[in-house]
Amino acid sequence: MSEHLPNQPGQRLARGICRAFASLGWETLLEYVPTRGLRVDVIALGPKGEIAIVECKSGIEDFRADQKWQGYLPWCDRFYWAVDADFPVDVLPDGMGLIIADAYGGEIIREAPEVKLPAARRRAVTLDFARVAARRDRRYRDPDVRHLEG
Amino acid sequence: MSEHLPNQPGQRLARGICRAFASLGWETLLEYVPTRGLRVDVIALGPKGEIAIVECKSGIEDFRADQKWQGYLPWCDRFYWAVDADFPVDVLPDGMGLIIADAYGGEIIREAPEVKLPAARRRAVTLDFARVAARRDRRYRDPDVRHLEG
Repeated sequence: MSEHLPNQPGQRLARGICRAFASLGWETLLEYVPTRGLRVDVIALGPKGEIAIVECKSGIEDFRADQKWQGYLPWCDRFYWAVDADFPVDVLPDGMGLIIADAYGGEIIREAPEVKLPAARRRAVTLDFARVAARRDRRYRDPDVRHLEG
Repeated sequence: MSEHLPNQPGQRLARGICRAFASLGWETLLEYVPTRGLRVDVIALGPKGEIAIVECKSGIEDFRADQKWQGYLPWCDRFYWAVDADFPVDVLPDGMGLIIADAYGGEIIREAPEVKLPAARRRAVTLDFARVAARRDRRYRDPDVRHLEG
């Protein structure tokens, strides 16, 4: 079997997170922009429309450099940190979910508290998720078209 | 520039349709299954969540073989036929939209009447579209994972 391991530690965590969510029936997008100036590592959409955001931290410096994570909370029902097994999890803020992951999968160690999105926000995020995902699919299946989009 | 022209006439039409919708700001999926037993050539999702279905007919035999198109109407706000410039459009049922297309684009010749989806159906289709699109994106970015899904 071929192997396509991502180069960066954070990308390897993200791949494992997406596999873990897929095994639970959730679909994911990487590098999703909920609004200008914010970019989340992983957004996941559950079978009933539940929305989770996962920030992958490859090390403590990576975590300390993140000044924006609280800005992600209004865009999801649940927020998780994802780190590898060597990460000093005590430095992470209390009260969010925690997933231990590697490039091949992950496990939810601490469930995230649920704060349900308002209906209008959920509709908007779901629609935008749909359009971003389809745009990415289209660019794979019709790579020639990029130049048409300006 | 490389060229990835699809083999089948219907697939070439579908590619042009997707390009045409993209130029209007709509995102598309090919071969979408709204419910068991139905498979539409193209479903398109507009900037405000509008949902269109497009059936691509490569020739009159292809059209005559389609016994299911009326089943697609409850899954969209607007329904279009897409055919190439040589197609005898008089054989198409009245009252639906019409797009003339080729592999490189298309043009709406007759606008489709709008019959807005009920809110619950729109939510369900949008969510399913999102999850199908993200699954396809994931299989491109992580092809090794297919074997995990059974």
